[in-house]
Amino acid sequence: MELNGNILIAQGGGPTAVINQSLAGVVLESRKFMQVSRVYGALNGVCGILNEDFLDLSQESSSNLEQVALTPSSALWSTRDKPDGKYCTEMFQVLKAHNIRYFFYIGGNDSADTVHIINEHARQSDFEIKAIHIPKTIDNDLVLNDHTPGYGSAARFVAQAFMGINLDNKSLPGVYIGVVMGRHAGFLTAAASMAKQKPDDGPHLIYLPERVFKMENFLYDVKNTYDKYGRCIIAISEGVQDEFKKPIVTSLYNQIAKDAHGNIQLSGNGSLGDLLANEIKDKLKINRVRSDTFGYLQRSFVGCVSDIDQKEARIVGEKAARLAVLYNVNGSLTIERTGSYSVDYKLRPLQEIARKTKYMPDEFINSEGNNVTNAFREYVRPLLGSTLPAIHHLQAPRVPKILRF
Amino acid sequence: MELNGNILIAQGGGPTAVINQSLAGVVLESRKFMQVSRVYGALNGVCGILNEDFLDLSQESSSNLEQVALTPSSALWSTRDKPDGKYCTEMFQVLKAHNIRYFFYIGGNDSADTVHIINEHARQSDFEIKAIHIPKTIDNDLVLNDHTPGYGSAARFVAQAFMGINLDNKSLPGVYIGVVMGRHAGFLTAAASMAKQKPDDGPHLIYLPERVFKMENFLYDVKNTYDKYGRCIIAISEGVQDEFKKPIVTSLYNQIAKDAHGNIQLSGNGSLGDLLANEIKDKLKINRVRSDTFGYLQRSFVGCVSDIDQKEARIVGEKAARLAVLYNVNGSLTIERTGSYSVDYKLRPLQEIARKTKYMPDEFINSEGNNVTNAFREYVRPLLGSTLPAIHHLQAPRVPKILRF
Repeated sequence: MELNGNILIAQGGGPTAVINQSLAGVVLESRKFMQVSRVYGALNGVCGILNEDFLDLSQESSSNLEQVALTPSSALWSTRDKPDGKYCTEMFQVLKAHNIRYFFYIGGNDSADTVHIINEHARQSDFEIKAIHIPKTIDNDLVLNDHTPGYGSAARFVAQAFMGINLDNKSLPGVYIGVVMGRHAGFLTAAASMAKQKPDDGPHLIYLPERVFKMENFLYDVKNTYDKYGRCIIAISEGVQDEFKKPIVTSLYNQIAKDAHGNIQLSGNGSLGDLLANEIKDKLKINRVRSDTFGYLQRSFVGCVSDIDQKEARIVGEKAARLAVLYNVNGSLTIERTGSYSVDYKLRPLQEIARKTKYMPDEFINSEGNNVTNAFREYVRPLLGSTLPAIHHLQAPRVPKILRF
Repeated sequence: MELNGNILIAQGGGPTAVINQSLAGVVLESRKFMQVSRVYGALNGVCGILNEDFLDLSQESSSNLEQVALTPSSALWSTRDKPDGKYCTEMFQVLKAHNIRYFFYIGGNDSADTVHIINEHARQSDFEIKAIHIPKTIDNDLVLNDHTPGYGSAARFVAQAFMGINLDNKSLPGVYIGVVMGRHAGFLTAAASMAKQKPDDGPHLIYLPERVFKMENFLYDVKNTYDKYGRCIIAISEGVQDEFKKPIVTSLYNQIAKDAHGNIQLSGNGSLGDLLANEIKDKLKINRVRSDTFGYLQRSFVGCVSDIDQKEARIVGEKAARLAVLYNVNGSLTIERTGSYSVDYKLRPLQEIARKTKYMPDEFINSEGNNVTNAFREYVRPLLGSTLPAIHHLQAPRVPKILRF
C-alpha cells in the first residue's frame, strides 16, 4: 500500500558536524517522490511536534540546503525530551492533523527509542505512519552499526587536537590530560591515538569507560611514562568508572546535575581533569601538569570535518527517504563495513537498536587497559577522512659540541 | 662593518600555529648570504644555547623546511627560562665558541627581554653579536605592533569554536562559558565576537582583563541575556581581574602553581569556568550551564590557521634575516598596519618592546565593559585570514498551525 501525504524530519540529541548532511539527504531525496506532498521540518525535535513548530522545507532552496549541509550542529535545533505515552498521544494528534505519513528522526540511541515508541503507538492507532531512525552520534555507540555519522568528524577533531597537543607538549614538556566526551563508550577518546606517529609521540596513555579506572594504576602508568620520556600525554573519557561502575568524577563532585534522561552531567565542567591533575601533582610531585576538557568544542567546531563522514551522513538520509517511501517500511538505518574501505547501508528493526549501547570491543583495547590496539587504529583510520593534516619535523643533524662533551 | 660567521635561531615561550613560518623565513633567507657560514638552530630556546644543543639547519632541505613551516608548535622546541647575568655569561661562551654573529629569537615579550639582555651583554663584551627579536604571541600583547604573528590563527580558532558553540547552544539552549587564554590582554577572547553574525547569535557577553570583573554585574548581564534570548554564551579571558588587580580565579584556587617568570597559572585547569558556572546555577537558578576551558587546543590545533598570519609570520622571519645581515643591526621586528588591509615591517629598539604589555585600547571595548565594539571587529577581521568558514541557516517559512494558535 502506498501512503500519500507529508513527510516530517527532526533532529534529536547532541549535534554533530554532519547531522545536516542527513537532513539535506532526506529533504532532497524525498522531494523527488510524487506521493510526498510536503516536506516539513520540526523545530527542536519531538518538542516541535508537540508544539506544531514546523518549517515547510518544500520551500527551502536546494542550493541553500547544500550550504546548510556543510554547517555543523542541528539546523532544525534539538531537544533532550523523551516522549512518554501522553506526549506520544499529543504528538499523534499533530501528525494526523498535518497528514504526516513518514517521520524521520536523526539522532542517537535515545532518539531511536523515541522513534520506536512512535512506531508502536502508530501500530495501535488508526493512523498509519512510518517512522525511521537515522543514526547520528559522536559517541559511536549505536549497536549493529560499524560506526555512526558524526563520529568520524568528532574523531578527527580529537586526533587533530592531540596532534597539536603532542607538539606543544614536546616543545614545553610536562603532563597533559585531555578529557574527551564519552559516557559509556570510549570510541571518541580512543581516536586520540591517531595523533601518535613516532614512538615517543603522545598520547602515551588512553583510558576508556570500558575498563575499570584505578587511581593507583593510573599514577603508576603516568610515572613510568614521565620517567621514560620526560613528559606524558593522557587521553581520558569523561565517563571513566571505578570498580563499582561509578564515574570517577562523582567522588569529587557532590552536587551532580542530571539531564532528562537520568544521565549524570559529565561534560561542561573541568572536574575530572582537575581532580587527576591534582593527584599527579600531589602524589608524583610533578610540577607542570595541565588538563583541558574538550567539552563542546569537539562536537560542533566549525571547519573540522571528515569527508567520508559527510558522504555517509548524506547517504543515510537519502537511503532512509528512499526505503521509507518506496517500500513503506520503518526501522533504523545502519552502516555496515564491507571492505577496506567500503560500507553498506541496511534497515534494521528499531528494537534491536533503541536503548542499547555499543562498547569498544576487547580487541580494540590493550591488555593493560591503558591504550588502544593497532586493530582500533586500522578501524578508525578511514573514518577520519582523506585529508588529515600531516606533521613534519626538522631533520637536520646535530652540531658537534665544542665546550661541553 | 660586516660580521662573518654563523647564525643561530631559537624559539621561546608558548608555541603558535605559524611560529615555524618565521623559523623557515630566517633559515631560507639567511642561507642566501655569503657572509653566513652556517645556520644553527638551538633546541629549547636559550636552554639549548647553554647546553650547546644545536641543529645544523644549513643541512636541512628546503622542501622539508616548507613542510615544517606548515606544522604548528615550535619545531626547535621551547623554554620558559629567562636568562640572568650568570646564564648570559655562560651563553656567551657558547656563542663565541661557535662563532655565532647573529642570533634570532622568535618569541613574545619575555623573549624580547631575553634578546635585550643578550644585546646588552654583547655591548659590554669583546665579542660582537647582533640579536634580533622576531615577534610571536597568540596573546597579541606586544607594544608597537598592530598585531603579532600567531594571533590571527589562534583568533581564528577561537572564532570558529564560538561559531560552533553558538549553533550548538541554539540547538540545545542554556548558558555556556568559554574560557579563553589571555593573562593581561583580551585580544584573543575578543576574537570570539567574530562568531556573531545574526543579532541573537552568541557570544552575547565578552569579559576581558582590561576591565574590572564584578560578579554582581556579571550575573546581572547573564540574567538579562538569558531572559531575552533564552540562552547566553559568554567568552571570558582566563585573566579577568577584580578591582584589586587580582585574578578572579585566585579567590577559588588556594594552591597556585607559578612558572619561572612568576606568572600565576591560569591555563591548564577548569577552575574559572567551574566557579562562574556554579555562581550562575546558584544565584540565577539556571539549570543548564556549561563551561569549557579552551586551554592548549587554541594555540596548537593542527588544521586551523589564518593564511594572512602564515604569510606575515614568514615575512617577519625573512625581514629579520635581511636587516640583520645586510645592515648589521639589532632590535625587534614589528608589524604596522598601513591600510585596509596592508602592513609594513619595521625594526624597533628592543627596550621599547621588552617587558611591556599592550592592552586592548578603549575604543575596542564597549562602555558596559561586557563586549567589544565594531572598531575591534574591523580591526580583527583581516587577521583571521581569507577563508573563514561560512554559517548557513534554513530559510524555509513556517507551516501554519492547525491545532494550536
